[in-house]
Amino acid sequence: MREFKRLTPYREALRLMLGDLVEIGEVEEIPLGGALSRVLAEDIVSPIDSPLFDRAAVDGYALRAEDTFQAREYRPVEIKVIDEIVAGEGSKVKVKHGTAVKLTTGAKIPEGANAVLMQEMAERDGTIIRVLRPVAPGQNVAFAGEDVKKGEVVLKRGQVLRPQDLALLRSLGFKTVKVKRKPLIGIIVTGDELIEEFDEETLKAGKIFDSNSVMLEGLVKRYFGEPRFYGVIPDDEEIIGEAIARAKKECDLVLVTGGSAFGDRDFAHRFVNLLFHGTTIKPGRPVGYGERVFIMSGYPAAVFTQFHLYVKHALAKLTGVIDYETRVWAKLIERVPSQLGRYEFIKIRYENGEVRPIHKKGSGIISSLVESNGYLEIPEDSEGYLEGEEVWVTLY
Amino acid sequence: MREFKRLTPYREALRLMLGDLVEIGEVEEIPLGGALSRVLAEDIVSPIDSPLFDRAAVDGYALRAEDTFQAREYRPVEIKVIDEIVAGEGSKVKVKHGTAVKLTTGAKIPEGANAVLMQEMAERDGTIIRVLRPVAPGQNVAFAGEDVKKGEVVLKRGQVLRPQDLALLRSLGFKTVKVKRKPLIGIIVTGDELIEEFDEETLKAGKIFDSNSVMLEGLVKRYFGEPRFYGVIPDDEEIIGEAIARAKKECDLVLVTGGSAFGDRDFAHRFVNLLFHGTTIKPGRPVGYGERVFIMSGYPAAVFTQFHLYVKHALAKLTGVIDYETRVWAKLIERVPSQLGRYEFIKIRYENGEVRPIHKKGSGIISSLVESNGYLEIPEDSEGYLEGEEVWVTLY
Repeated sequence: MREFKRLTPYREALRLMLGDLVEIGEVEEIPLGGALSRVLAEDIVSPIDSPLFDRAAVDGYALRAEDTFQAREYRPVEIKVIDEIVAGEGSKVKVKHGTAVKLTTGAKIPEGANAVLMQEMAERDGTIIRVLRPVAPGQNVAFAGEDVKKGEVVLKRGQVLRPQDLALLRSLGFKTVKVKRKPLIGIIVTGDELIEEFDEETLKAGKIFDSNSVMLEGLVKRYFGEPRFYGVIPDDEEIIGEAIARAKKECDLVLVTGGSAFGDRDFAHRFVNLLFHGTTIKPGRPVGYGERVFIMSGYPAAVFTQFHLYVKHALAKLTGVIDYETRVWAKLIERVPSQLGRYEFIKIRYENGEVRPIHKKGSGIISSLVESNGYLEIPEDSEGYLEGEEVWVTLY
Repeated sequence: MREFKRLTPYREALRLMLGDLVEIGEVEEIPLGGALSRVLAEDIVSPIDSPLFDRAAVDGYALRAEDTFQAREYRPVEIKVIDEIVAGEGSKVKVKHGTAVKLTTGAKIPEGANAVLMQEMAERDGTIIRVLRPVAPGQNVAFAGEDVKKGEVVLKRGQVLRPQDLALLRSLGFKTVKVKRKPLIGIIVTGDELIEEFDEETLKAGKIFDSNSVMLEGLVKRYFGEPRFYGVIPDDEEIIGEAIARAKKECDLVLVTGGSAFGDRDFAHRFVNLLFHGTTIKPGRPVGYGERVFIMSGYPAAVFTQFHLYVKHALAKLTGVIDYETRVWAKLIERVPSQLGRYEFIKIRYENGEVRPIHKKGSGIISSLVESNGYLEIPEDSEGYLEGEEVWVTLY
């Protein structure tokens, strides 16, 4: 069995992979209701001022502030209410000296008025209100364009659409939005040791369940892709070659698990001109990429690491998504040593504002992934971190 | 117009609401592939040890550690390779004194062997290997049950299923999983001022777009519910009453936006025996709950606040979900004053490990929601926080 001639440093390998992938051009215009968590395909420029008109920020009376300047509790100013409107209505009257229009929050400020007196601040008596204190010009008025100005860029290309982003789009009159087509990610799982059905005897003889497919499908969905599963495939050179050829034709990126080393049964790399093969990451060193095919480990914890360190960023490149990670700066409650020359992926638990490394080791160990809610990266030139050091961790 | 007689403190109001709601009992058993982001309905107890058998943690030679104790570089020990297996296969031979079985990572350790010599550590010569250094008993062996023990609780009821949780379930032999039925959340948007189609003239006359429905639909989906939209309804007592009655019959919880105060056009509260009406939260004071109906503001920023402070927790109560919020402990880069007696919801931006309050005010202001990626809560008895103080913020 050959060993890797050279372990490509993680950052270099990542750069090679991202440099080879091309952002997807296709855009889908879809209704806002279906756009949650999709990646915005263009900058959104507001077509209108928002609010479109000056409006009341409270329930009360629209009036001319000047009329109230002399108002004192012991000498109220009397003003005549000449109309009543609610949000969604305009008033046809003009507010002149000594008059006011009653309105509700959100209603358009009538012509002539420049302030709103809060309802609780007025004493009402038929069509007359008594004003006890002066109102400043502009008081309780939400001015046109105060929220968003016409022509302003309100959302950026590459943003992941959240509920409030959809609300903003709707408030500006949009009913649809252009999002990136989801990249189609082929998943090929290889390995004679993998079975699909529960059979304790077979299991005891040394077989295991394929857990990589369900994990990768979930990860691909979470990071803006559309998974397509090509099945669990035996360690057969011809069958693997065919599956890779087909998946490459149909997908934007192909993930192959298993067979990423140089063993007698490691076939996948024979079908691809690799840009790198073997990197400094731990766990998950045997990994290769070329021609839109990413060859991963067969071991779930290594696959998970390789997904976060490579595939997640590849999906970001394909979709153009920005801000797709939650990174937190927090204190390590334990020392985390690391081997020089390795780019380590340390599973952690972020809790109560502190970071605790998860100690279970071994690339088959799925329970450590389950216990963790994030990871810490340690570059090749670092020997790790001390207890009490503050570090960046990425949550998942 | 009446004012609220009493503003119920936020925590008391929340307790009243949660105390009235009942966790959903219905469970759906679904394939793992469809279970991403669903809420687990039961504790998962492992039916097997995992690994089910002792297996090789590296590629190499399974042997008896005792046979290597005398091995030195200048005096190698010779051992005969009697079989070769790969992961997924068992060996039929028994490893006796002076013999070894070649195997790949993940393969079952043959009977008689108690350690694995890493491939790189042996010199191979036909069927003979030369061992240069002693191997310790258990070295490079992943023991049965090392990851998960039979009978161990590996996932807890109420967990939101992530890709790695699905992988763990699969590795233990599960093909389906029991999750909570999604609570059905009715959404009724009221307001004569709301329009659906873009029409600049109508907009200029004082109308606005309904942005609450698309925002609430998105929020409900994100927090494990299934939204059902009952449309934009005019401020008409009869129509609102009918919509509430229908939605109550069909849904687990009903959200009504608009008409949450005591104005002439505030009808929704007339159809519900409210447990509270008017709370200390800011923005979004006019809010009421009773009989599985939650009456919210009409203003998007207030609706957003009310969702996070009440509805999100209501959804958690209905589904039994745990750990549904990402909370971060971080430093405020600016002073945040707060009014005593108000439970303030301060929109913030968490970035580079620091927390910055978003200053735009006004309950109609959607752009502040878009700019923010989390919030800070300030209880009624606090006057706020100083610059440089560390605070908990909740990310969204």
